[in-house]
Amino acid sequence: MGTPANLAYPRGVCARMAGMTTATPRGYTATKDQLQSRLRRIEGQVRGVEKMVDEDRYCIDVLTQISAIQAALDKVALGLLDGHTRHCMQHGAEDGKGEEMATEMMAAVGRLLRRG
Amino acid sequence: MGTPANLAYPRGVCARMAGMTTATPRGYTATKDQLQSRLRRIEGQVRGVEKMVDEDRYCIDVLTQISAIQAALDKVALGLLDGHTRHCMQHGAEDGKGEEMATEMMAAVGRLLRRG
Amino acid sequence: MGTPANLAYPRGVCARMAGMTTATPRGYTATKDQLQSRLRRIEGQVRGVEKMVDEDRYCIDVLTQISAIQAALDKVALGLLDGHTRHCMQHGAEDGKGEEMATEMMAAVGRLLRRG
Amino acid sequence: MGTPANLAYPRGVCARMAGMTTATPRGYTATKDQLQSRLRRIEGQVRGVEKMVDEDRYCIDVLTQISAIQAALDKVALGLLDGHTRHCMQHGAEDGKGEEMATEMMAAVGRLLRRG
Repeated sequence: MGTPANLAYPRGVCARMAGMTTATPRGYTATKDQLQSRLRRIEGQVRGVEKMVDEDRYCIDVLTQISAIQAALDKVALGLLDGHTRHCMQHGAEDGKGEEMATEMMAAVGRLLRRG
Repeated sequence: MGTPANLAYPRGVCARMAGMTTATPRGYTATKDQLQSRLRRIEGQVRGVEKMVDEDRYCIDVLTQISAIQAALDKVALGLLDGHTRHCMQHGAEDGKGEEMATEMMAAVGRLLRRG
Repeated sequence: MGTPANLAYPRGVCARMAGMTTATPRGYTATKDQLQSRLRRIEGQVRGVEKMVDEDRYCIDVLTQISAIQAALDKVALGLLDGHTRHCMQHGAEDGKGEEMATEMMAAVGRLLRRG
Repeated sequence: MGTPANLAYPRGVCARMAGMTTATPRGYTATKDQLQSRLRRIEGQVRGVEKMVDEDRYCIDVLTQISAIQAALDKVALGLLDGHTRHCMQHGAEDGKGEEMATEMMAAVGRLLRRG
């Protein structure tokens, strides 16, 4: 399609398509209802950790709960990102905002990796 | 465009577009040359850590080096993902493989977040 | 002290001590009050994200908020781990539980790294 | 031992000891030989990724490999930290360097969490 040589990584790469990769894809697609109920559960988990700290519960047990909250937040983030990729970015591409939105989306993934 | 109610998160969300977000986007776009030279540098950093362990260097200093390698690998991963989003996924969308490729891309982001 | 050769990594390593490392240490020590007020703030942030999803706010802005919550949770986790290392593990060592507690603490750090 | 009220989190917390937590501890202890051979394998994996990029392999497959390297590096980091906790910190405590070394160790864990 003509990405100039040396300008971007993928030359001929895009020819190889989904389905050739060994890893089994795992679905993160979520409805708005699912995201809402996950967030309510996370809110409850945070309150649970507050209570554990109030009651001087063993630090390691509190840490285990915090790790569980992080995993649940990651799942919400991946659900949002999945919707963004499937819907917003597709609309953005049609409106000629593809590049701008890819930059913005990559910045969001970078923040998730570096955790804030 | 008609995402059915309750099926996916974004209803009306896509109307709000790039540029409305407060966070300044940070560019991860990388050429193939840049990716190659970063990977060669990472290979050297890994050899440096091997040497540090051989010489019984102070653990905390070795850990600092490992964190630097992790950050460098994240940057390579974000560069690859950026190219994938801008090029492969766009081509995929044109070929009617948009959904399949979004699932696959999300699985890759999920592995990066969970680190393997 | 005689760690047998090839049994554990650090031989002579412990001779080199704190202060020789180039990285400036960053304090994570937190009082119980600080942990409690951080957790209350995190609970508020989670409620804020619930509201954002209810109002169909732009996905990228929601993701930015989630990254901020992850960073805040990491800080709470590091505060708890800091207290555990300074207090519990020291007491544990005096009670001959040093090994058991080191294994347990490492498992907690492993869960934080893999995020759940 | 008398941590003053409100100064540090754990009051009475340390009374509850290892073994009361629900999570099964997972061992990260590693010999110097094991760390060395893991690092050599990681060096090979990085070279493998360089080759994949040279050959324009499919981005998602390269990302999968990078995630595997990150997981392997985490395991080396946890092995080093495990040795540090069991050996160096114990020696440090005997030498009255306990506080300084705890600050330094926590800084290293913070860098691992934020990935650099």
